Amino acid sequence: MNTSIPMSGLLLAAALLGLSPAALAQGLPPRDVPARSLPVPGTVSPQLQALIGQPLRTGWNTPPTTPEGWRQLAEAGAAATRRLLPGFKERLKVDVEAGEMGGVKVFKVTPKDIRPENANRLLIHIHGGCYVLNPGEAGLTEAIFMAGFGGVRVISVDYRMPPEAYFPAALDDVVSVWKAAIRDTDPKRMAVFGSSAGGALTLEMMLRLKAEGLPMPAAIAPGTPMSDVTGAGDSFQTNALVDNVLVAVDGFCHAATLFYANGHDLRDPLLSPVYGDVAGFPPTILTTGTRDLLLSNTVRMHRKLRQAGVEASLQVFEGQSHAHYNRDDTAPESREAFAEIAQFFGRHLAR
Amino acid sequence: MNTSIPMSGLLLAAALLGLSPAALAQGLPPRDVPARSLPVPGTVSPQLQALIGQPLRTGWNTPPTTPEGWRQLAEAGAAATRRLLPGFKERLKVDVEAGEMGGVKVFKVTPKDIRPENANRLLIHIHGGCYVLNPGEAGLTEAIFMAGFGGVRVISVDYRMPPEAYFPAALDDVVSVWKAAIRDTDPKRMAVFGSSAGGALTLEMMLRLKAEGLPMPAAIAPGTPMSDVTGAGDSFQTNALVDNVLVAVDGFCHAATLFYANGHDLRDPLLSPVYGDVAGFPPTILTTGTRDLLLSNTVRMHRKLRQAGVEASLQVFEGQSHAHYNRDDTAPESREAFAEIAQFFGRHLAR
Repeated sequence: MNTSIPMSGLLLAAALLGLSPAALAQGLPPRDVPARSLPVPGTVSPQLQALIGQPLRTGWNTPPTTPEGWRQLAEAGAAATRRLLPGFKERLKVDVEAGEMGGVKVFKVTPKDIRPENANRLLIHIHGGCYVLNPGEAGLTEAIFMAGFGGVRVISVDYRMPPEAYFPAALDDVVSVWKAAIRDTDPKRMAVFGSSAGGALTLEMMLRLKAEGLPMPAAIAPGTPMSDVTGAGDSFQTNALVDNVLVAVDGFCHAATLFYANGHDLRDPLLSPVYGDVAGFPPTILTTGTRDLLLSNTVRMHRKLRQAGVEASLQVFEGQSHAHYNRDDTAPESREAFAEIAQFFGRHLAR
Repeated sequence: MNTSIPMSGLLLAAALLGLSPAALAQGLPPRDVPARSLPVPGTVSPQLQALIGQPLRTGWNTPPTTPEGWRQLAEAGAAATRRLLPGFKERLKVDVEAGEMGGVKVFKVTPKDIRPENANRLLIHIHGGCYVLNPGEAGLTEAIFMAGFGGVRVISVDYRMPPEAYFPAALDDVVSVWKAAIRDTDPKRMAVFGSSAGGALTLEMMLRLKAEGLPMPAAIAPGTPMSDVTGAGDSFQTNALVDNVLVAVDGFCHAATLFYANGHDLRDPLLSPVYGDVAGFPPTILTTGTRDLLLSNTVRMHRKLRQAGVEASLQVFEGQSHAHYNRDDTAPESREAFAEIAQFFGRHLAR
């Protein structure tokens, strides 16, 4: 079999996507995997089975091509998410209040029952959405889950996004909120968390805090972080069309990231933190799933942290695509993921 | 699209394999994944790239059908592995001596440089090989890696295998060695480890120790354990023909397990420990890879341990198929995997 044709095709695809050829090993033949029909596993809850059984995300490979198109896509998604929020807030018993910190829009997400050990603790949440999606309240799902399952106060950052502002505006905003937060709260009593772009921003924020000599939080929880947006990572291939959320490396999320990056080098650790110097990072817990397109992004980041001597814990959930733990609060796996993060924070945050 | 045909086909396949229909969710359509060409990732060491680039294991789907056929297959594989041992022993600076403990054949694997903190510590190793393969010295690769990378003494159990003896002979043998070991060494100074069937046997041994009221080791390290041999687990599907070692759920390893089980119920926790009561297990570190057919077996076991309140750590290596960390001692990922396990043991074992 002549293997040079598919390899050339891959390199061509990589070039068209602006992906690094370093994403591929040289001179070794690819593995041909035949077409197959993947059943929904019976080893997860019925709620998670329903998520796994959903079709591929509509329009995953037809991203907008104009700023106005992105704005419309973000608003359509946000409208859908906003319809879910009353149920989340009611079942998880949290209140949400809009506000501002350090000149940045935020939401204060407060559980009706704050656990005694969390009375003086505060979490900062950075939402996901490929740096472009989930504006306003639509970014609150994960903050509500964390506040409710963990019994802890959360500030969720409604950072600026394209087309309003580009790289590094999102990072600037989360750092501004952090600077404001540490004026009132001991950073040893705080943690930072978020998934996807929010996971990447959590890691990028630590790089920025290090560079600026600012205090670090006591712990962080980047969930399935976009830690490498250059296209490198084996699960971009192995979980292509298996993950029904991100679907494939060349889908809407990469297009959104390019829109945010606005021409900036994707290999900059402030866009691909897996290439950063993570020595001195706070204790970190990472979350992903076996079908996650960012499984490799997550486990590579975990290894990188461990190589640097950082206390780092990894949880991988059976059958979950990208950030599936952030979808259905009634799925026992969602409760489990956030309870694990809450327990990790509980071990590392001062009271 | 009519999805009843592939689903029926899967159920039929499951029935033919003796797999539990509970492995599949009912009433949800499968996901059709097209054929693709998976490149070797550039995100791992050249040594690991070479392992990932190897073709599917020869004869993965043509297992022996007679006891003599199994014996010949085991001997052929063992002969190949034995040729590698002198290099392993030399590079990792360990000595190997055959012996017996509790009436069971063992090998004492001793590094020339025992780290001072490990002077009084001892590890028990249980080799893998689907309960049938890797007899004698061929089971020592992982023991040599652990002894050398960790600077710690290891006893590797050369347990009885079919066609000499069937379930639960292997388990009986590791428990016999344990009973002999704790006569001389404080169990608080000991850990137990092993991969694949050896990972399952490590877990099964803890269930047996609990049932018999025997002391537990201070920590265990089941690597990519065969924790569920009923066919349940999403990565049996997602990593089918992606993992080049085990290749697929209905391959040689399942046939070997049926040979060992000898008609015993595969759902018995002493064959599928993910269904056991793991409360009270010692601190556990699990290792797997993103292409591992047993990725789900490993992460499901991790969740099960965490749900029971057991301290459990998970490491997942980029691009690795089943137990690839046990193959090439010169791959930095192998050193990293064993160094992580050694550090985990170092935190939990008494001096």
